[in-house]
Amino acid sequence: MNYTAKLLPREKVFRDPVHNYIHVAYQVILDLIGTREFQRLRRIKQLGTSSFTFHGAEHSRFTHSLGVYELTRQICDNFVRNYPSQQPGDGLWNDHERLVALCAALLHDIGHGPYSHTFERIFGTNHEAWTVKIITSPETEVNQVLRQVDADFPEKVASVIQKTYPNPQVVQMISSQIDADRMDYLLRDAYHTGTKYGLFDVTRILRVMRPYKKGIAFQANGMHAVEDYIVCRFQMYQQVYFHPVSRGMEVVLTHLLQRAKFLYEDKGSHHIQVPTLLVPFFEQNFGTDDYLKLDDGVLNTYFTYWRDNPDSILKDLSIRFLDRKPLKSIAFTPETETILPKMRDLVEAAGFEPEYYTAINDSFDEPYDAYDPANNNNRAKPQIEIMQEDGSLNELSTLSPIVHAIAGRTTGDRRFYFPREMLHPDDLQIFTPVYDEFKQHVSNNALK
Amino acid sequence: MNYTAKLLPREKVFRDPVHNYIHVAYQVILDLIGTREFQRLRRIKQLGTSSFTFHGAEHSRFTHSLGVYELTRQICDNFVRNYPSQQPGDGLWNDHERLVALCAALLHDIGHGPYSHTFERIFGTNHEAWTVKIITSPETEVNQVLRQVDADFPEKVASVIQKTYPNPQVVQMISSQIDADRMDYLLRDAYHTGTKYGLFDVTRILRVMRPYKKGIAFQANGMHAVEDYIVCRFQMYQQVYFHPVSRGMEVVLTHLLQRAKFLYEDKGSHHIQVPTLLVPFFEQNFGTDDYLKLDDGVLNTYFTYWRDNPDSILKDLSIRFLDRKPLKSIAFTPETETILPKMRDLVEAAGFEPEYYTAINDSFDEPYDAYDPANNNNRAKPQIEIMQEDGSLNELSTLSPIVHAIAGRTTGDRRFYFPREMLHPDDLQIFTPVYDEFKQHVSNNALK
Amino acid sequence: MNYTAKLLPREKVFRDPVHNYIHVAYQVILDLIGTREFQRLRRIKQLGTSSFTFHGAEHSRFTHSLGVYELTRQICDNFVRNYPSQQPGDGLWNDHERLVALCAALLHDIGHGPYSHTFERIFGTNHEAWTVKIITSPETEVNQVLRQVDADFPEKVASVIQKTYPNPQVVQMISSQIDADRMDYLLRDAYHTGTKYGLFDVTRILRVMRPYKKGIAFQANGMHAVEDYIVCRFQMYQQVYFHPVSRGMEVVLTHLLQRAKFLYEDKGSHHIQVPTLLVPFFEQNFGTDDYLKLDDGVLNTYFTYWRDNPDSILKDLSIRFLDRKPLKSIAFTPETETILPKMRDLVEAAGFEPEYYTAINDSFDEPYDAYDPANNNNRAKPQIEIMQEDGSLNELSTLSPIVHAIAGRTTGDRRFYFPREMLHPDDLQIFTPVYDEFKQHVSNNALK
Amino acid sequence: MNYTAKLLPREKVFRDPVHNYIHVAYQVILDLIGTREFQRLRRIKQLGTSSFTFHGAEHSRFTHSLGVYELTRQICDNFVRNYPSQQPGDGLWNDHERLVALCAALLHDIGHGPYSHTFERIFGTNHEAWTVKIITSPETEVNQVLRQVDADFPEKVASVIQKTYPNPQVVQMISSQIDADRMDYLLRDAYHTGTKYGLFDVTRILRVMRPYKKGIAFQANGMHAVEDYIVCRFQMYQQVYFHPVSRGMEVVLTHLLQRAKFLYEDKGSHHIQVPTLLVPFFEQNFGTDDYLKLDDGVLNTYFTYWRDNPDSILKDLSIRFLDRKPLKSIAFTPETETILPKMRDLVEAAGFEPEYYTAINDSFDEPYDAYDPANNNNRAKPQIEIMQEDGSLNELSTLSPIVHAIAGRTTGDRRFYFPREMLHPDDLQIFTPVYDEFKQHVSNNALK
Repeated sequence: MNYTAKLLPREKVFRDPVHNYIHVAYQVILDLIGTREFQRLRRIKQLGTSSFTFHGAEHSRFTHSLGVYELTRQICDNFVRNYPSQQPGDGLWNDHERLVALCAALLHDIGHGPYSHTFERIFGTNHEAWTVKIITSPETEVNQVLRQVDADFPEKVASVIQKTYPNPQVVQMISSQIDADRMDYLLRDAYHTGTKYGLFDVTRILRVMRPYKKGIAFQANGMHAVEDYIVCRFQMYQQVYFHPVSRGMEVVLTHLLQRAKFLYEDKGSHHIQVPTLLVPFFEQNFGTDDYLKLDDGVLNTYFTYWRDNPDSILKDLSIRFLDRKPLKSIAFTPETETILPKMRDLVEAAGFEPEYYTAINDSFDEPYDAYDPANNNNRAKPQIEIMQEDGSLNELSTLSPIVHAIAGRTTGDRRFYFPREMLHPDDLQIFTPVYDEFKQHVSNNALK
Repeated sequence: MNYTAKLLPREKVFRDPVHNYIHVAYQVILDLIGTREFQRLRRIKQLGTSSFTFHGAEHSRFTHSLGVYELTRQICDNFVRNYPSQQPGDGLWNDHERLVALCAALLHDIGHGPYSHTFERIFGTNHEAWTVKIITSPETEVNQVLRQVDADFPEKVASVIQKTYPNPQVVQMISSQIDADRMDYLLRDAYHTGTKYGLFDVTRILRVMRPYKKGIAFQANGMHAVEDYIVCRFQMYQQVYFHPVSRGMEVVLTHLLQRAKFLYEDKGSHHIQVPTLLVPFFEQNFGTDDYLKLDDGVLNTYFTYWRDNPDSILKDLSIRFLDRKPLKSIAFTPETETILPKMRDLVEAAGFEPEYYTAINDSFDEPYDAYDPANNNNRAKPQIEIMQEDGSLNELSTLSPIVHAIAGRTTGDRRFYFPREMLHPDDLQIFTPVYDEFKQHVSNNALK
Repeated sequence: MNYTAKLLPREKVFRDPVHNYIHVAYQVILDLIGTREFQRLRRIKQLGTSSFTFHGAEHSRFTHSLGVYELTRQICDNFVRNYPSQQPGDGLWNDHERLVALCAALLHDIGHGPYSHTFERIFGTNHEAWTVKIITSPETEVNQVLRQVDADFPEKVASVIQKTYPNPQVVQMISSQIDADRMDYLLRDAYHTGTKYGLFDVTRILRVMRPYKKGIAFQANGMHAVEDYIVCRFQMYQQVYFHPVSRGMEVVLTHLLQRAKFLYEDKGSHHIQVPTLLVPFFEQNFGTDDYLKLDDGVLNTYFTYWRDNPDSILKDLSIRFLDRKPLKSIAFTPETETILPKMRDLVEAAGFEPEYYTAINDSFDEPYDAYDPANNNNRAKPQIEIMQEDGSLNELSTLSPIVHAIAGRTTGDRRFYFPREMLHPDDLQIFTPVYDEFKQHVSNNALK
Repeated sequence: MNYTAKLLPREKVFRDPVHNYIHVAYQVILDLIGTREFQRLRRIKQLGTSSFTFHGAEHSRFTHSLGVYELTRQICDNFVRNYPSQQPGDGLWNDHERLVALCAALLHDIGHGPYSHTFERIFGTNHEAWTVKIITSPETEVNQVLRQVDADFPEKVASVIQKTYPNPQVVQMISSQIDADRMDYLLRDAYHTGTKYGLFDVTRILRVMRPYKKGIAFQANGMHAVEDYIVCRFQMYQQVYFHPVSRGMEVVLTHLLQRAKFLYEDKGSHHIQVPTLLVPFFEQNFGTDDYLKLDDGVLNTYFTYWRDNPDSILKDLSIRFLDRKPLKSIAFTPETETILPKMRDLVEAAGFEPEYYTAINDSFDEPYDAYDPANNNNRAKPQIEIMQEDGSLNELSTLSPIVHAIAGRTTGDRRFYFPREMLHPDDLQIFTPVYDEFKQHVSNNALK
């Protein structure tokens, strides 16, 4: 039997707290899980700085990736049982697509680095590009496993992630407004944070998904389960992903890496204890092996080094990050934005360098992106289609007033970050007038 | 108001997936959580290598410590509501003990280092001694917070952990055969592994706990809930904590650190990339600050360095650990133990140095330690006492046939570890006879 | 000690699947639970005909009433801990209100009869009036218990249910747009139906509730939990309470009771087996004792009698109800409504008397009733107020786009009910043209 | 297509709180669910008088029967995927057995009447005999559905329930020491009572079940899950099914029916309001239709009639049952048993007729019945066999010390029941000496 179709002698399972069991039948999948690149995901937290706010959220991208694989597997099982293709072009499910779908699901996050978004901003990397690179570069173990299926199989898997794969059903399983990726992370993040916002009825959604020519639609009798999912997603963004304290830690991290980079560029590596594994990134000269060596623990290790650094800013920010001392924040509006320069001046007057101790941080999300006839651009995100008994389709927000209410509008806030000391000063005597003036502009957690 | 009794203006809560919320009313507790030493626990996994078997078990000692605190708080609430002491010596609960109990609960694991048990074996450290040291050393932030309560408060808290505190109720809350520590870790480990074995009725157990002169007893109508807890604990040890694959990873880790230590001692630090933060331990000359800098990520970072080490054993073991390639194992008995030297020879014949590629690993546990009149030693563990309506006490195993069945007998197994290649060789030609002979001795996952 | 303040020697608990435990400290509450009138609620299903659709929904009004009591108790505990009144008129919580709140919570549904809404329509009873009557009539055991507290205590408890009690906090705990009643039934109905729609974060909502002068408000940091509750409520109405099949069974029940009443009035009691306990209601001459003798089982028993009744309609409808043969339905709109007379004619042509075999059934709900300045009537329902840090209030829908989307608009549908035989005829020959014409008007579960 | 293999056009699901969804693919199963006899199970509580102790336990035999069906379906799915028979006699699973297994699972409790065990004792009926009769009598709807499959199909299904069906795998699925019936009721009763004792890992048990020649065995790697199930079962019996208060209500019910029967036999039907549907049973002259008309509600309706009966004992016991006034109890031993006549005399002296107001009630269970070589009788229950990798079998209790501890020994207690008034008298004056003497014999809830 060839490698593609090689099934394990007996299905293997991994115990999972969210899906109960992850079921693996293909040797390819088991081999991918065993690669260096995939195992590395154990050392990268799924939610970055969110665990500083929700202490239970310590799960890794490894467990999430297994979960996305499992949901994709369940979708395929449902499709082949209920909607098997009878002839090419009938818009039903061709189970020969299963393996490429499963591999893409498993590997969709393989390019993530530590504290992804922050790291990318500072060092100009891109996790999606890295995902494609790790899948398609002959040097990786992942690529070596995929190549055994077929010489062009790595490219196929990568094209699913790049959304250029010809079968839209496979693409939408992994990447759409309601896909295996999002469903797993909402459920898993809710499980680990202990919040209830992310709990929607995944069993029912899986039951009402169905393939059609342009991708995946949802039967009309499951509309409310889909609606509930959109609301859950909205709530998780508002309550968990955009939490001001997690963002306050992200600001500290960003400034800390900026300072390290600045010191390295400005004064050379002798000035900071040599962060061996970061040097290629400071010097913007890195390869796949360099990238694969990074993880959350590596960055934290250098921060531990820097607790004793002579540069007082690097040292202080390292301590703030490791010991969880977030910058504090207040919301502002276009009206109150004009006061910000003043606020920054006050922070500086209190002895903090504004470049490293203040920040503006925006968090906005579009909970659901419905088709807007007035703005008929080629949107990346296909809308969610509800299929009636007679096969006719309606876009979700035309049926659901709740979804209509949140569709197409971005929600979130803009916040000004500053040292907690400005509001809770330890040393009252010298800077009292500065603090007092600062506090005058703060009310109900907002700038006034 | 003095610091001891200082309550937060409003109770603060932390969202917790196991207990729903952790409630904090005292400023002292909030300050302890904010210390460097306590925040460090976020970077040390609760279950060490178990997450290599149960991928969801990625939670840290930080979350567990909060959980132990919360259960202790709930016990105190129950005691003060239902069993408040009226006069000294009545054996009921004096709520002045609450703060020392809460602090001891929160800090009971503060001395744990990365991969505790393995690390301790190699470097001769001891997490309980470190816990006491961190609490009582003036240099730590934890000590500074505790000192504000009272000059001798750190010593008091430490004595609870050392079980020398005069009030046995406080000691038994934190440390007995059914204490807040064990209850939290069983529930939490079950939650994160996704197994059901650790799920007992904690609400009912808390309800039937009651103080008496010699410590804490359990009302007779809750006997079955206590029984169920003992069985859960037994099952978790058998199914999760003693899992052969996790132990296979622990063996790899042990040998990896041994090899690094050997190379450092034998050939000097130039031979391995300088593991700056480990050097004090290699040189057996470390202080509190050195110890506090260690965490799981620091160790993993050095293992990442060593992926490229010229020493082939250090390099290979580093890769096996980071990429999850556990040593495989078979059980053996006193009868089959005699074959082990032969097996080791075969491993060596296949090209693996036995010192680093074989191991014997025992896992034994005593699920419940009941009093044995024939062996009347001064046991550290008080037995579990069931209190009848008229106040008379019976030791648990005299009432429960199930507990009687597992009490006082150690359960577990002894296993021989070796490279997976011995059973699944990649290179058949050269060593085929060696492999064949090895396999002849393996049957039903045991040595025969 | 007087009866009012009489606490049980030890708190008593009832194991509850939704709230884990129901805690009872007052003798009054325990005595009320033990009354004939309260125990009767065990024999009346909470959801009437919904268990014909969601088979798990077999729970009674007894369990729900205990749940409402328990949530009210938790609200009181929170209020007295965090918002104790210091002086009259400060808008904070006076714990002397606790007992009246607890009793009103426990008894708020005591007047419900079997299949409440259907029964009331046929026999002109009213469950709220019965609740007041049972609480205030000297002949009931409930009244006898309450009177022991104080001569006017029954009236006080009744006035809470009638919303005339002077303290709006107490009234709103039991009866508002987010009260203990609604929170318990959403959670409990979700638990027993097995749907996930009703799962909101009740712990968080309880935490952010707070008393103020005009009743109960919600802290701003809990706004999203309240929002989520509104969405849950909306979903439960759409998915569970308004389910077309349950309504199809309700239609059968309504027509069955109508037929029985008609036969009794028209032909006298000899014509139907004497439904002893229903006779007072047929004759519109009933007292409290007559009402208290009714329950679901009593009605079902008479339906069992009527399985053998000579009247073919009474017999057939009894069988349809007992053996779960709901009328089928299609939705219609103002546009298609004109076809209904034709449809009824076709049903009649197929041999079914339209009065008993067709029906129009509307289900509409207002998920949230926000204040409408253009329609400033004296609304019974206070709106949900969100309180900022500085004490200012905002009505929920002004802050939440989701709530705004569903506020003040009724949602639901209008359906035409008819015998299943019209679409799935057993006897094709005679009526084939009738069936064919009927089917022509049905498409996508709607009239066309 | 013939009826046997007739699949529904699309799989139908029923939402279930325990198994999430019940999946139905066969028309036969859907038709069986729709029969009068199966729908009747909605009106019979699964746990009889247990809901008087655990108020949540209001679920019916209908929901349990669906659950047993669903677990059986899952076992079949597992068997056909992993252990499909290749040739007759290989001991693997032949999926032609599926339909008979599913039907037997669904119908295994179809013969239960209201308050089964009590009713049977008084009227000499037997629910297993009724199950067989309902399945095989041509007059029932169940039989008519089954006959459509094949003329001898009803007999086949009945023989599974009678354990005479030739294939032991099918028999053991439905009826053995670890079968679909027991697994469903433990999970379901735990869910509704809200206790945690019944929660074992059903997914894992289903995974490790496997067919072999003599029935069903369990893979060695799942031994602990099976062990846990045995302990759960043990705990549920001790904590829920044998609860003294539920038994106190059962005693009331038994005496109530006895009194009614006595009055009917002694004085004729005029003496008690005619319990129309019970008359055939009083007269011991009943047919299937008579039996099928009974349910919990019918009995309760007659009890409601009898609230006003002139016979003071019938009236009083009816009120005690409807209003939940259980007889109270104390445990006794062979040593204290000698005092019982004295206790009965005291109850009589206090004015209660001992025949109706005292009782002895035993509850004993054998948690697991292992093979006892010393007592080699032809046991009905096959023991639980654990299968090693090489196919060898070990009986469970030889591997598990916990199971060994509880195997083959009956556990339970013997209790003496009497009116609560004996311990909590309302009327002190007259009977004080009687009460005092009675109380002298009671200590720690036991006779002394």
